[in-house]
Amino acid sequence: MRMSRYFLPVLKETPSEAQIVSHRYMLRAGMIKQAAAGIYSWLPLGFKVLKRIEAIVHEEQQRAGHIPMLMPTLQSADLWRESGRYDDYGQEMLRITDRHGRDMLYGPTNEELITDIFRSHVSSYKDLPLTLYHIQWKFRDEIRPRFGVMRGREFLMKDGYNFDLTKEDALHAYNRHLVSYLRSYERMGLQAIPMRADGGPIGGDYTHEFLVLAETGESEVFYDSDITDLRFGERAIDYDSVEQCQAVLEEFTSRYARTDETHDAALFEQVPEDRRRVARGIEVGQIFYFGTKYSDAMGAMVVDQSGARVPVHMGSHGIGVSRLLGAIIEASHDERGIIWPEGVTPFHCGIVNLKQGDAEADAACEALYAALDALGLEPLYDDRDERAGGKFATMDLIGLPWRITVGPRGLKNGVVELTSRRSGESEELPPEAAVERIAQIYGCATA
Amino acid sequence: MRMSRYFLPVLKETPSEAQIVSHRYMLRAGMIKQAAAGIYSWLPLGFKVLKRIEAIVHEEQQRAGHIPMLMPTLQSADLWRESGRYDDYGQEMLRITDRHGRDMLYGPTNEELITDIFRSHVSSYKDLPLTLYHIQWKFRDEIRPRFGVMRGREFLMKDGYNFDLTKEDALHAYNRHLVSYLRSYERMGLQAIPMRADGGPIGGDYTHEFLVLAETGESEVFYDSDITDLRFGERAIDYDSVEQCQAVLEEFTSRYARTDETHDAALFEQVPEDRRRVARGIEVGQIFYFGTKYSDAMGAMVVDQSGARVPVHMGSHGIGVSRLLGAIIEASHDERGIIWPEGVTPFHCGIVNLKQGDAEADAACEALYAALDALGLEPLYDDRDERAGGKFATMDLIGLPWRITVGPRGLKNGVVELTSRRSGESEELPPEAAVERIAQIYGCATA
Repeated sequence: MRMSRYFLPVLKETPSEAQIVSHRYMLRAGMIKQAAAGIYSWLPLGFKVLKRIEAIVHEEQQRAGHIPMLMPTLQSADLWRESGRYDDYGQEMLRITDRHGRDMLYGPTNEELITDIFRSHVSSYKDLPLTLYHIQWKFRDEIRPRFGVMRGREFLMKDGYNFDLTKEDALHAYNRHLVSYLRSYERMGLQAIPMRADGGPIGGDYTHEFLVLAETGESEVFYDSDITDLRFGERAIDYDSVEQCQAVLEEFTSRYARTDETHDAALFEQVPEDRRRVARGIEVGQIFYFGTKYSDAMGAMVVDQSGARVPVHMGSHGIGVSRLLGAIIEASHDERGIIWPEGVTPFHCGIVNLKQGDAEADAACEALYAALDALGLEPLYDDRDERAGGKFATMDLIGLPWRITVGPRGLKNGVVELTSRRSGESEELPPEAAVERIAQIYGCATA
Repeated sequence: MRMSRYFLPVLKETPSEAQIVSHRYMLRAGMIKQAAAGIYSWLPLGFKVLKRIEAIVHEEQQRAGHIPMLMPTLQSADLWRESGRYDDYGQEMLRITDRHGRDMLYGPTNEELITDIFRSHVSSYKDLPLTLYHIQWKFRDEIRPRFGVMRGREFLMKDGYNFDLTKEDALHAYNRHLVSYLRSYERMGLQAIPMRADGGPIGGDYTHEFLVLAETGESEVFYDSDITDLRFGERAIDYDSVEQCQAVLEEFTSRYARTDETHDAALFEQVPEDRRRVARGIEVGQIFYFGTKYSDAMGAMVVDQSGARVPVHMGSHGIGVSRLLGAIIEASHDERGIIWPEGVTPFHCGIVNLKQGDAEADAACEALYAALDALGLEPLYDDRDERAGGKFATMDLIGLPWRITVGPRGLKNGVVELTSRRSGESEELPPEAAVERIAQIYGCATA
């Protein structure tokens, strides 16, 4: 993309309404614009990151054998009356009346709707196990929306639902979700720690929240510092293997890690003192096993091997897709702006032309652009007739992890400059070598 | 995908509520399930087609230089009061009150919101031309929703908005949209004819609707039969060239083609009698140039070259993404089911194992599956222990354009059967040759 043709409305001033760094930078980098309280338009740069996160979630869910679909944003109140949640859910549920006076709502979650789909189409254990998921906009009418996309009212979430014949099978689905979530967050450059959590309005005895450590986190967390050394990494996993998934669960949840909701001071005391940590965390996902709560209430039954009709065992599993943008920025920024991890960056690298209009510099930038494009990478080329300082400030603010700087002086020596946004380190090298380096970083095959 | 692990709830019976063929087949093929009147869940097969259509729209819009973003589903009523449409828009607008008593609405279209974004960030002609678009769910509270996704209440639409300094520039944007729409529909296997249309509530003197001819179409259309010979085809186009885009507009709109809303009997009489056609059509898109209607009302001004503040010229351009599934099926089916064009098919081909459990047949199917997968293609392998007749009926119903049938008898002679869903013709050939043929059809590079 050429900056001269893009829509990147960067702000010089920090908007006064933004209290936390991710909200400030998302506004300043032209990623979002508030449309109403807690409701945002995703400007082109923000939309690109949202799509990258969504793509990682889709890939990792499907790798785990979970099946994508899509439920609508609006639901009929009838199903929620069946489960009993229509009255239980408080004012955070946005209730709507259509032109015929029918009660509807903007879905805050989808247990009822997916259970209705299941009971309409599945009646035999032979069709199990089954996990369906979708990534869809949801609405919670927060009384005080704030912190930008971190606590908005309209938000994008992945929610998945497993249907299994037995509790044992359902716990394997729970473990599959835990593994796929660990992989997803790591690909986004995040460390998200599974912590024992509280069931809340969805219910459930087995539930873990995934928390990213950050000073601005809404939850107080207590953990054994050993847990931050754990990485899922590149290990191979067979999602059909009960043992392998269970082993990952044990590895990542055996150390003490809880939010204030489930914190147990006596247990925490048993962690060696030098490893006890109290910090703050941002919740970016949660997994639940809740057994037959909804299948009992809504009659989602299957015939088992013996011919008996039994309620199906379920769980639900969520990732806060739009919220993740805020969490990533909270975890990865400096005083000049955002620092995107390579896995979610909106553009793979920036190209800064120090002397727009100089024939040689222009040609070198175009050649770099074409070479990166041919590798399937997306560079953002700042081809505007602006001062170098302004171009650098914009690139730093929007946080592309790599920048290639091209100027007449360097070109005389046959070199351009490759700069890491994270370390700030620069290196001079021939343009072809810079392309080769970027290709290596992103794992592209070069000729 | 293996059928044994997929969720494909095919119905034997035709649901009584479905009046038209696309609705019937989408229900029977397990593509959608009604969640409430005019509101659907997209089951896995339907979701896959929806995503393919969405991907084509994204690709062709970006090829035309239009920039993707995303606006929210819910909007504040305030912006609609500014444009004057809050009161004008009738009961089809779903009006909502939030917990603080603020008036909101589920966006049926986005002229106000995009104009607000524009006026907040753009103030100079130097930032023009600019076309922003998004693909987002919308809601129109139809009094009698029917025909499945063809006339639903919650529907997915691409809407794009151009901002230009002059009427001339805005008409070039109009033409770019026309070209990109022709390309998009052809890639979906559709012929959509641009017809002179009526501005309706959005307003505008320049507007064309794109109609797919089908008996079940909601509009009566009148056209010169010569128009159905036109194809955009594989021709190269420079979207920056005013002349090239204008030439396409003239080629595709100079012959008589109008809906009943704009039909002019006297003009139609001038078409040679043997070329006059009266038929029915399904609207799948519409483009508008409406000048300064919204920029005047909402103060979207830019400074021009002379330093004067002038209202920006705008247009809006829509493609009915979810409706297109219905339109494609109306245009492409037979008595056995759907016939997907290759460009939008949910799976590239089906694999039917005539004797599940036979070691040789199973191994041959697995080898085909792996070979297609390695090419980046997605086969759907019916690995269930079912009768061949049932497997064929399912494949025909869900409409995959190609089927490979594998059985012990053929394998003895070293062949499998490749069948075209459209022509019904079958050919026996070695498995490797079948893979090669499928790769050619989808333009995959083979080693």
